[in-house]
Amino acid sequence: MNKKLAEIAPAKYSSFYNFYYDNYPADVAEFLESLPKEKVLESLDQLNYEILAEIIIFFDNDFKKEIAAKISTFKLAEILSAMYTDDAADLLSVLKVGKIKEILNLMKANKALELKELLEYDDQSAGGRMTTEFIAFYADNSVAEVLTKIKDLIIEPEMIYYIYVISRNKKLLGVLSVRQILAASRNKELGKLMNKNVVQVNVNLDQEEVAKVLAKYDLLAVPVINNYQQLVGIITVDDIIDIIEEETTEDLYKMSGTTNTYDIHGNFMEGVKKRVPWLFILLIGGLLSGTVINRFEQALESVAVLAIFIPVLMDMGGNVGTQSLTIVVRALATDELEKEDYLKHLLNEFKSGLVMGVLIAVSLLLITLFWQQNLSIAFVVGISMFTTMVTAVILGTIIPFIIDYFGIDPAVAAGPFITTLIDISGLFIYFSLASFLLEKLV
Amino acid sequence: MNKKLAEIAPAKYSSFYNFYYDNYPADVAEFLESLPKEKVLESLDQLNYEILAEIIIFFDNDFKKEIAAKISTFKLAEILSAMYTDDAADLLSVLKVGKIKEILNLMKANKALELKELLEYDDQSAGGRMTTEFIAFYADNSVAEVLTKIKDLIIEPEMIYYIYVISRNKKLLGVLSVRQILAASRNKELGKLMNKNVVQVNVNLDQEEVAKVLAKYDLLAVPVINNYQQLVGIITVDDIIDIIEEETTEDLYKMSGTTNTYDIHGNFMEGVKKRVPWLFILLIGGLLSGTVINRFEQALESVAVLAIFIPVLMDMGGNVGTQSLTIVVRALATDELEKEDYLKHLLNEFKSGLVMGVLIAVSLLLITLFWQQNLSIAFVVGISMFTTMVTAVILGTIIPFIIDYFGIDPAVAAGPFITTLIDISGLFIYFSLASFLLEKLV
Repeated sequence: MNKKLAEIAPAKYSSFYNFYYDNYPADVAEFLESLPKEKVLESLDQLNYEILAEIIIFFDNDFKKEIAAKISTFKLAEILSAMYTDDAADLLSVLKVGKIKEILNLMKANKALELKELLEYDDQSAGGRMTTEFIAFYADNSVAEVLTKIKDLIIEPEMIYYIYVISRNKKLLGVLSVRQILAASRNKELGKLMNKNVVQVNVNLDQEEVAKVLAKYDLLAVPVINNYQQLVGIITVDDIIDIIEEETTEDLYKMSGTTNTYDIHGNFMEGVKKRVPWLFILLIGGLLSGTVINRFEQALESVAVLAIFIPVLMDMGGNVGTQSLTIVVRALATDELEKEDYLKHLLNEFKSGLVMGVLIAVSLLLITLFWQQNLSIAFVVGISMFTTMVTAVILGTIIPFIIDYFGIDPAVAAGPFITTLIDISGLFIYFSLASFLLEKLV
Repeated sequence: MNKKLAEIAPAKYSSFYNFYYDNYPADVAEFLESLPKEKVLESLDQLNYEILAEIIIFFDNDFKKEIAAKISTFKLAEILSAMYTDDAADLLSVLKVGKIKEILNLMKANKALELKELLEYDDQSAGGRMTTEFIAFYADNSVAEVLTKIKDLIIEPEMIYYIYVISRNKKLLGVLSVRQILAASRNKELGKLMNKNVVQVNVNLDQEEVAKVLAKYDLLAVPVINNYQQLVGIITVDDIIDIIEEETTEDLYKMSGTTNTYDIHGNFMEGVKKRVPWLFILLIGGLLSGTVINRFEQALESVAVLAIFIPVLMDMGGNVGTQSLTIVVRALATDELEKEDYLKHLLNEFKSGLVMGVLIAVSLLLITLFWQQNLSIAFVVGISMFTTMVTAVILGTIIPFIIDYFGIDPAVAAGPFITTLIDISGLFIYFSLASFLLEKLV
């Protein structure tokens, strides 16, 4: 129903359980997040483990952490047992190592083992994202067997995306959709029906690549296999949406010079720690730009008016460079730019730089002439602007590509590095040109 | 199988049809996009309309446009008839108005009418994104009727996400999952089984909001209703992934001062047209910053060394402001920041600004002292840096919020506007302070 929080206030209900019953878990979770901690624990006490499991997965990470710290290990073990393994692994990963061990000891051996295995995968890999709940049958199972099994499953309806077919030693052989099963005659063997060309990902594949595969083939879930081609889990489309949001947020932060993810609800000193390293790099960069001006101090002393155009040159160079960089970074991230197309793109950017450079430089030249009434200064400023913009476009296009080539995320190239490089080259061009024409200026 | 392009080259196959048969439509489409235009048309000629429909939806928009322009209206009408209405509307929307009319006249009246209606919705709204193929039954239909109908459906298996229950006048009453249907007894009525609390969206809701709803509730599809509560379509999760990618790309571009989407494969002059307006705004901004320096030309003439610190002040102010802004913009886009939390966040940012300001300003003061051997200048630079950074943090946090309040996308606040504002205030603080302490400096 997507109701507003105010409308779903549990005051209208005779008990918190009734409130839960009438609303979606995501809404209940959102409502709880707005309450004081004690109230939350009080409300959660009224619900059973299965319901708690459904709600807790919708809490954001910090809230999960705070709440989980207040719940007994015994209760947590029960809640975790009621969750899908990927959600359970997510919840466990916010806890302290000692508590994790305690909880795993309290759980059923097979579930605990599955969770332990999941926790060992890199949490940004397919293995770290997958769930181990999936529906797999052997090739000689019949359609009737599948239908009976599906009816008896206690897991949630959303889990039935595809039915996977495996060999006795768990190798992935094929895939079937629920509709294929429904349309087929009851005694048909799955091996005769299945599609053998299965889109699949390796357990070690990076989550960003997993997302691309799922998005490309418009799938609801993708099977995850280990190095022996054995089916070990599936990644579902709802997790892919989370991954895409995480990765784009990460790119944005990197481009603005904030390390990785930034938790808006976290402690502000945590945020400061993430931002300060970039600021120090930029401080050095800014001072390096300053040394260029320092070198030309004499020119500046005789013609102080030159300083007026430092901001406009720096702003334009930085901005046009960032534009070029954003285009490349985004195209690389969404796989829109193939390596083969790159030279063509660089040429296009160069042409764009020439056109934009002429437009802006001529405008600036005319404005400067009108403002300062000095043709020489107007020419120095105009030519510098043109050169700076073309340089910025080229640097903005080439640098992310070089960085990408070395396997580093090109988004980090933005912000500090590109800005400093463009500032230095821009200021150097400007003051060199000014000094060269200085006799005419003074 | 997610094969590399080289591995799926159709040369290995006896005909293009066999090549198609052995590979996923998304891979076939990707392969075709790498071929010269004539080759593509030649290959497509070997396939029937249903297969063409499957492949063409995976082409990117420019490729779709180029190819569709070369296909006869008669053939296009057949291909469009074989597509889901949302994909068909997408393909139609890249064609010229005259051609669209011709094609619609060639299609079956009811399909043409549906398409015409879809084309009338804003293409960024739920209506513009939805497909009109969904499975709906009346509340008095039995489970057995549903199962028979599903078996007979010719539409693709992926289409069965949920089964919607409607009244005789098409009002949305409830929803059922396929698993609920499978588990229920055959003669049960849907009205007795259905979940009446349906997450739904209005046909005019913005696509970004639709994506948030689907992501929040982890749904595979969301029903779209008109203002009379009638079910008119569904939006599926694969479209949501596209929407999320589009919207984040848009945000990134806006923040780097490039209007909306930027087509990396498009004509470069198209790109220039999108970028130049922002550059002109920034040109004015940069010149305004210059007027601040102009005002203090006298101070600069006596102490030219002041110019050295213009870049570092501008860089740091701009960067720290962009950091603050990115955090707010991203949190607003992902709904992580509730309006109620905003003051708390502003306070946190202010505290962060104070800490980062002190760290950077003291470092800069010491560096300047060591470099210029002048305590007064070191103090002027240090204090200016501190003030600039705190101002930048506050502006970077407040401005996107103000813009968001007026219903404008806060991402546009980045780049040009914030940079100019911070530059002007930073330079003003710096030179005012310098002039004030000038007697000591000279």
